[in-house]
Amino acid sequence: MRVRKRKGAEEYLLEHSQLAVMQPDRWQGRWCDRFCNNHPLHIEVGCGKGRFITEMAKRNPGINYIGIDIQLSVLSYALDKVLVADVPNLQLLRVDGSDLLNYFAESEVALIYLNFSDPWPKSRHEKRRLTYSSFLKTYKKILLPQGEIHFKTDNRGLFEYSLVSFSNYGMFLKQISLDLHASDFAGNVMMTEYEEKFAQKGQVIYRVEVQFIKREY
Amino acid sequence: MRVRKRKGAEEYLLEHSQLAVMQPDRWQGRWCDRFCNNHPLHIEVGCGKGRFITEMAKRNPGINYIGIDIQLSVLSYALDKVLVADVPNLQLLRVDGSDLLNYFAESEVALIYLNFSDPWPKSRHEKRRLTYSSFLKTYKKILLPQGEIHFKTDNRGLFEYSLVSFSNYGMFLKQISLDLHASDFAGNVMMTEYEEKFAQKGQVIYRVEVQFIKREY
Repeated sequence: MRVRKRKGAEEYLLEHSQLAVMQPDRWQGRWCDRFCNNHPLHIEVGCGKGRFITEMAKRNPGINYIGIDIQLSVLSYALDKVLVADVPNLQLLRVDGSDLLNYFAESEVALIYLNFSDPWPKSRHEKRRLTYSSFLKTYKKILLPQGEIHFKTDNRGLFEYSLVSFSNYGMFLKQISLDLHASDFAGNVMMTEYEEKFAQKGQVIYRVEVQFIKREY
Repeated sequence: MRVRKRKGAEEYLLEHSQLAVMQPDRWQGRWCDRFCNNHPLHIEVGCGKGRFITEMAKRNPGINYIGIDIQLSVLSYALDKVLVADVPNLQLLRVDGSDLLNYFAESEVALIYLNFSDPWPKSRHEKRRLTYSSFLKTYKKILLPQGEIHFKTDNRGLFEYSLVSFSNYGMFLKQISLDLHASDFAGNVMMTEYEEKFAQKGQVIYRVEVQFIKREY
């Protein structure tokens, strides 16, 4: 997500260190201490301005959420929303998605959200896509064995690429929608800014739920 | 594919028994004898009026093709095209897709095409969908280990269902297109009657290539 640079973003985040985690390695394997409970942990890699993760946190007080983004300005806008929401189960984390292993212990996370990730359409940038095999390897480590990845995008090329990448990694599709807003998937009241914009344009939104182990019947 | 019943369809097919196989169990494991060569065997389950398979046979003389359909009238229209095409590498076979094990030996087939299969949208008809697990089991048996299924449809629900079905069966995606005519997939000059109609309406065509074993890198 590209946003204009916000003056004083870093200071603003530092001022709210109870919500925006600036020393994340302190909490690896101990996020339950930070949240003061043992609720499941759901993270959004690339949370952007935080609309999705804030809405999720409000709706599901029994789940702990962490919104992750590397951009200070973007995360500062997410902080605006977190402050308004005023919920105890949401934290922001300013780190790079490729470093997640440093900030989460094995099996510490129950669910990873990837929403409207940067498509990096050029082949030479394949490794930067959040569904590239090296990222899947990281997700597998920090996720519980039965943990899930929920991935949503309007970008057809990225979605096609990701389906093949998941498959090659031996992952299993739990659910898929190739036109989210035309389908009857009830859970999708929580939209990102991107999704709203695209939906208004009539653009198709793709969504998939995948797991590293086969689901039970 | 629903077509009007054609008078004399059966007699017409019987008259051309060199092209339309009416005693198929005779050829199980011996299709190479029927074609008088050892070329790879590609079959289309549900060939309808035969446009796709006829075009494929014309373009690829080094591959043997069998178009399969259960409906006599439909197959008789396919025979019209086969007679015009006048190629030695194409046969028609009037059998039910669920009985393929009776007509093909293990590993006898290199590629299975499923084009615009009946979506059977009602849940209670799931078992009739050509990508239901029992069909996948059959395909796996008659396909070579590295054999492929190429599946194309305009039906979003069937495609979503099929992707999950393939995944649950432990199959691997080799290639996927979520909008065939907008993508740069070069092989798709061969269209079925359905596809042409849908493409003209601007309807999205989905296409996937899957395998039972992981592709090599």
